Amino acid sequence: MVKFANRIQPCDNGLNDIFTYANDPALISFAAGYPNNHLFPQAELKSAFASSLTDSTSLQYSGAAGLKSLRAKIAQHISSPRRTFTAAEILLTQGAQQGLDLTAKLLLDPGDGVVVEAPTYLGALSAFDAYQPTYYEVPLQDDGMDLNVLQKTLMTHHVKFIYTIPDFQNPTGSTLSLPKRQALLRLAQRYDVIILEDSPYRDLRFSGESLPSLASLDTTDHVISLGSFSKILSPGLRLGWLVTTPELLVPLTELKLGNDVQSSTLVMSAIDQYLDQHDLSDHIAKMNQAYAAKMATMLNALDHYLPAAVNFTRPRGGFFIYLTLPADIDTGELLKQVILPQAKVAYVPSASLFPVSHQANGLRLNFTNLDTATIELGVKRLGQILTRVLAQPKYAKL
Amino acid sequence: MVKFANRIQPCDNGLNDIFTYANDPALISFAAGYPNNHLFPQAELKSAFASSLTDSTSLQYSGAAGLKSLRAKIAQHISSPRRTFTAAEILLTQGAQQGLDLTAKLLLDPGDGVVVEAPTYLGALSAFDAYQPTYYEVPLQDDGMDLNVLQKTLMTHHVKFIYTIPDFQNPTGSTLSLPKRQALLRLAQRYDVIILEDSPYRDLRFSGESLPSLASLDTTDHVISLGSFSKILSPGLRLGWLVTTPELLVPLTELKLGNDVQSSTLVMSAIDQYLDQHDLSDHIAKMNQAYAAKMATMLNALDHYLPAAVNFTRPRGGFFIYLTLPADIDTGELLKQVILPQAKVAYVPSASLFPVSHQANGLRLNFTNLDTATIELGVKRLGQILTRVLAQPKYAKL
Repeated sequence: MVKFANRIQPCDNGLNDIFTYANDPALISFAAGYPNNHLFPQAELKSAFASSLTDSTSLQYSGAAGLKSLRAKIAQHISSPRRTFTAAEILLTQGAQQGLDLTAKLLLDPGDGVVVEAPTYLGALSAFDAYQPTYYEVPLQDDGMDLNVLQKTLMTHHVKFIYTIPDFQNPTGSTLSLPKRQALLRLAQRYDVIILEDSPYRDLRFSGESLPSLASLDTTDHVISLGSFSKILSPGLRLGWLVTTPELLVPLTELKLGNDVQSSTLVMSAIDQYLDQHDLSDHIAKMNQAYAAKMATMLNALDHYLPAAVNFTRPRGGFFIYLTLPADIDTGELLKQVILPQAKVAYVPSASLFPVSHQANGLRLNFTNLDTATIELGVKRLGQILTRVLAQPKYAKL
Repeated sequence: MVKFANRIQPCDNGLNDIFTYANDPALISFAAGYPNNHLFPQAELKSAFASSLTDSTSLQYSGAAGLKSLRAKIAQHISSPRRTFTAAEILLTQGAQQGLDLTAKLLLDPGDGVVVEAPTYLGALSAFDAYQPTYYEVPLQDDGMDLNVLQKTLMTHHVKFIYTIPDFQNPTGSTLSLPKRQALLRLAQRYDVIILEDSPYRDLRFSGESLPSLASLDTTDHVISLGSFSKILSPGLRLGWLVTTPELLVPLTELKLGNDVQSSTLVMSAIDQYLDQHDLSDHIAKMNQAYAAKMATMLNALDHYLPAAVNFTRPRGGFFIYLTLPADIDTGELLKQVILPQAKVAYVPSASLFPVSHQANGLRLNFTNLDTATIELGVKRLGQILTRVLAQPKYAKL
């Protein structure tokens, strides 16, 4: 049989166990990272698509970079008094995910170094893996990456880019502080390393003040920044954006051309129409109110039902809360052997979110796509079974 | 500055010259491969999108393989009495272009061999280039690839896949004969090489009988076959499909997940609705009638206006006619120095369509996106200037 390329490796991310239970009506899944179906601006998008489809050019090819009028609106959306962006700095992509693939494709030869937060986003690893990097983990603290560890890594290893999710990180919900944003940029500049800023949750802040994006703080062209309509409008549209300096944008656009020619003219045009007719900030504010209530429900339930030996994060936005169990627990084994069959609750176990250390004692919970009663019930079931498991002297065998 | 990966090479495909003239209203461009704006089923798609947008799940994530009901309809569309396909053999992609990227990503390590028809589709080379293959050209004859040259190549080189456009090839319009389809499959089997069948023009036959696809003739799992809605419905939707054996489909779907998670749920759902409500074959028949008239106009004009030293193909379908000029003409230089500035006509010069030999004396003309009067006028201008150029004793200096 035909031999696959070296990049193709058998993979088990621990999520297959969940699929076995996917059709069980009793299952409460905190595993996926789906936005809430009820919050899509469905009628508004219906009218935007109808409006776009009055013009046949919305069904034609339109160029690899993406519709200029939409790129201009995105530029405006991400601009701040600190920094103004323009359409010429933006490439439209298939969600932020394609920006991960294109960046890795631009920069990585096999063996090249990539720094990731530990834990990090599984989908980013699946994009990067295809280019066979060497991963370096940098632990996350409450205010983002441990920059001392990062600096040691940059001093001793050849790193092509630093991958970070600075706002409401996936999976921990943590946010990189302003001083650390500035220090991270200084390190990138000193060691001449690209920062890949992935920020799909940036606008989903439930409390506190927004922090400037790394792209807006960058004065030396060391940032590629990714955003997406997936979490603020709809993931079924598959549209995101990549922002960077022309020197990187030109070859990235060439790679986009080879990947899939361009994004959908119709989808770009309809989003452009939507943004003409509606205030995206109003929609986001309404969504944040709903998500904040769901997160509060989950945090309260975690406070109430979790045994004391389990720690968890308290994010100020985003999609996820991250739990840390005693160090000898393997949350993947626990999920498969006890929690799925007995509690009918699903989560993302942490082992695959640490590409080097495979730390197995964490888990990610999502709160956006369930109603508050179900969140409460699911956390109750999870808390009760964790209480039982951690009370057993032999739990470490799990 | 940050060093790019080895795969990133400066590129000049000879198309930049055209962009200089793109806004000149006098320009008649035969260069692009666009379907005709007036033939999109615009009202029908408008109603299909409206119908999809009555259900919020069309705006949600839906899985990497693509909507099953649409895959089932595509399976039916490509099935024949000879061979029935099922949804389980299909992956939905961003146009056929993404199928090119995914196949190369699955199979190619740097230096691995890829056989291409000479000339071939520029976009395929741009997809494959990212995986740094070694190209082997096989000349095209009227009935497809020269299989003697192919066999010698397979005997003497390690080849991972054979890339072919069997129906109304891009750029020549030639179609692989049935005996050669069978012989090609025997060679693939004997040398255990994948055939990558790229057939976006397959349904656009203006005369003669349809030939079985390579996928439908394959009995030994040696074919990956690509199709697309771009040329039969609309390229602005960006939806295509990949058909192959599960053994290849599973890792290809994993790669799709890393590339862009999935295709647009809404676009898949709307096409599914369109196919529920309308007969695609009727739409294609209507389109073929219009395209056949345009091709006939172009062939008549070429007969009438071209000097005798220029040969051209007479396809039975598709989007393109290919011209061959005397061997010492460089159609890229000719375009830039004479034809664009003096005749205001554009085409695709051939040098970049031959990745090894860079044969420069061919050119590709598209006839689908212009009205017949403009086709006639453009060919007249092209023929007159070629007549003048070829009458000069020194034309070879161009």
